[in-house]
Amino acid sequence: MSVLLKNAVHDGDVVDILIEGKLITKIGNGLSEKADEVIDATDMAVLPSFVNAHNHAAMTLLRGYGDDMELMDWLQNKIWPLEAKLTEEDVYWGTKLACLEMIKSGTTSFVDMYWHFPGCAKAVDEMGMKALISGVFIDMFDPKQAQKKRELNEALYFSMDKYSERITYCLGPHAIYTVSEESLRWIREFADKHKVPITIHLSETVIEVQQCLDKYGCRPVEFLDKIGFLGPDVIVAHCIHLTDNEIEILKKYKVIIAHNPTSNMKLCPGVMPYQKLKDAGLTIALGTDGCSSNNNLDMLDEMKIMALLHKNTTLDPKIASADEVYQSATEPLTKSFFRNSGEIAVGKNADLILVNLNHHRLIPNHNLTSNLVYSANGDCVDTVICDGRILMKHRHIDEEEEIIQRAKKAVNRLLKS
Amino acid sequence: MSVLLKNAVHDGDVVDILIEGKLITKIGNGLSEKADEVIDATDMAVLPSFVNAHNHAAMTLLRGYGDDMELMDWLQNKIWPLEAKLTEEDVYWGTKLACLEMIKSGTTSFVDMYWHFPGCAKAVDEMGMKALISGVFIDMFDPKQAQKKRELNEALYFSMDKYSERITYCLGPHAIYTVSEESLRWIREFADKHKVPITIHLSETVIEVQQCLDKYGCRPVEFLDKIGFLGPDVIVAHCIHLTDNEIEILKKYKVIIAHNPTSNMKLCPGVMPYQKLKDAGLTIALGTDGCSSNNNLDMLDEMKIMALLHKNTTLDPKIASADEVYQSATEPLTKSFFRNSGEIAVGKNADLILVNLNHHRLIPNHNLTSNLVYSANGDCVDTVICDGRILMKHRHIDEEEEIIQRAKKAVNRLLKS
Repeated sequence: MSVLLKNAVHDGDVVDILIEGKLITKIGNGLSEKADEVIDATDMAVLPSFVNAHNHAAMTLLRGYGDDMELMDWLQNKIWPLEAKLTEEDVYWGTKLACLEMIKSGTTSFVDMYWHFPGCAKAVDEMGMKALISGVFIDMFDPKQAQKKRELNEALYFSMDKYSERITYCLGPHAIYTVSEESLRWIREFADKHKVPITIHLSETVIEVQQCLDKYGCRPVEFLDKIGFLGPDVIVAHCIHLTDNEIEILKKYKVIIAHNPTSNMKLCPGVMPYQKLKDAGLTIALGTDGCSSNNNLDMLDEMKIMALLHKNTTLDPKIASADEVYQSATEPLTKSFFRNSGEIAVGKNADLILVNLNHHRLIPNHNLTSNLVYSANGDCVDTVICDGRILMKHRHIDEEEEIIQRAKKAVNRLLKS
Repeated sequence: MSVLLKNAVHDGDVVDILIEGKLITKIGNGLSEKADEVIDATDMAVLPSFVNAHNHAAMTLLRGYGDDMELMDWLQNKIWPLEAKLTEEDVYWGTKLACLEMIKSGTTSFVDMYWHFPGCAKAVDEMGMKALISGVFIDMFDPKQAQKKRELNEALYFSMDKYSERITYCLGPHAIYTVSEESLRWIREFADKHKVPITIHLSETVIEVQQCLDKYGCRPVEFLDKIGFLGPDVIVAHCIHLTDNEIEILKKYKVIIAHNPTSNMKLCPGVMPYQKLKDAGLTIALGTDGCSSNNNLDMLDEMKIMALLHKNTTLDPKIASADEVYQSATEPLTKSFFRNSGEIAVGKNADLILVNLNHHRLIPNHNLTSNLVYSANGDCVDTVICDGRILMKHRHIDEEEEIIQRAKKAVNRLLKS
């Protein structure tokens, strides 16, 4: 498969871009190579696609099912009862709906943690996206549960040849208050042995910190340090309640932070100390969290909310500039997991979007990055390509109608069951 | 002109809606009346259109021209120098771009304050929208300037027969730190005499409050009370720094508050005490502010940011619920200025939108209000009608391409001049 993008705006120049297989192979003027597909990208900017650092994709099915509630009331009376009824088929269609939404707003890659791994992995693979996918690992400190979850995770790991290489197995211990120390140690060993990444929720709420202090006599990050869990292969979501010592530890191990501003503002656990983490040199990757706590998966929305949140928290309008926020939405995970992308250059993977510069939300074009962060919406993204495959062309995705109808059907069944 | 909406979803029922002239004249099943235009509204919700309570429409031309800057640096080195070059023609095209953007995201009515009133009024009128339009009244405490501005405002008021009745003249004193007491008193008298509304920026920054204390020996709201300025015909924008006494005064006069969460978070003057104002029974109407401090005019974005801001500020997820926020974006000003709208009912003005319930961002439909506030984007709005006139049909607006090209041209001229 080859794709030729004609007359795309790239760093201020108008160029043609040739994509062969997964890679960008030529950038130049008047390229006349034959390609399976030629896309007229006149008045479109070619940019790296977005990477969503934290998601529970299939929770699209719970979008709007419970809002404006206290966390535990919401979890116990809304989310968990409905989640308990989810089947692998539901997760498959819920994830497809999530992929549809992400592609429509320019995202090609994400990190996921959810139930029914195979339903998720199959959906992402078919949709042509890239993901680190983890099953939720929860043992509730019960050795029997722990054994079961370890076996499940091993089985999932050894089933990965079912999927294309766009799907990466990832370990997903839910959090330190739902996973035993023994299991966390097992997860670390498994990750080392098989060279797989880990994602975990960390220091999201005050209660989590207090329970950790009560149980382990130290704070969450200190506890994970003590058991040798941390490393540059760990993506920790939230990181709201951190001491200076904990920030130092995260820095020492080059842990990657997945930052979810909308979810944090909606569920109210507090605000991640963005500037402190940034000043410490930590890598901050933007994520949407799942649809039930956001309630969409749009990285364009998320960038704006991230910038606004940190300006408002510090009352400093210079904090979390458009450039910084845009970087956090596109770059961090391309250095580590979704390798060889995040840049429009020869030899790089073609994970990219075409942005319609004639869209009314991007007029005038004083500053494209500012326009993307503060003004754009998903409708500005015209075309999305991942690993050289066209996932959306001029806003059309083949499977769109079917996904919508099947997701509706899944929800109707869930509500009636 | 008559319009028949077929099979629209209205309060959970599927109905036909007949619009004759400006009014909704029938709601029922199987309406067979002949109409000039029949719109298939199958799987679309019919809802009141959004009302944007605070705008400087033509500032679309300055979208992204300066961001992430200190307020005074931003104003003095970016905004004011470019604004000084604006012509009436620029304001006309800038306002048209603003109207395009508002219509595309479901807004039909707004409150505006900007330079070159005739350029703005003509643009809004032609686009078919409704607005309270004010010229900026600034005299900088100079009697000569004051006299000039009074004459200008009188002339504008007496020129209103040029425009349709969708355009309402409004007085727009900029703020108490840019308009003299004498002019504020003159404005109040003029408003009483001609029964016209007033809009003013109020209590936006700490500096404004301090200057007021220094100059008048009392706080901004107390000062406006003292000079008899306040009333239910006054829309005050921002209201961030208020004492309990000031809240009582605002309540006593039934002053309407235009709340601009994005602008406040981006420019960092602080956070409006939402719950306190709500508890006091004050009317809070949502607005976007101008494009240079937002940077878009999308009430769907604004609703989400409003809800998130107040939850995060109080760390209470129940604050600023989807229902409350939705109400603030649609209803308040229809009680006072944009009368006889804000509701889909026989006898009401047809100021309404059709929302595509099959849009992926609204799937599943557990709760439409939640979906609109937390998940939707402008692309979910299919059709927009104002005063019975179709402003957008199935996302098409006739003049779209011309507006975009002309707005670009205006900006190119501004940057070169």
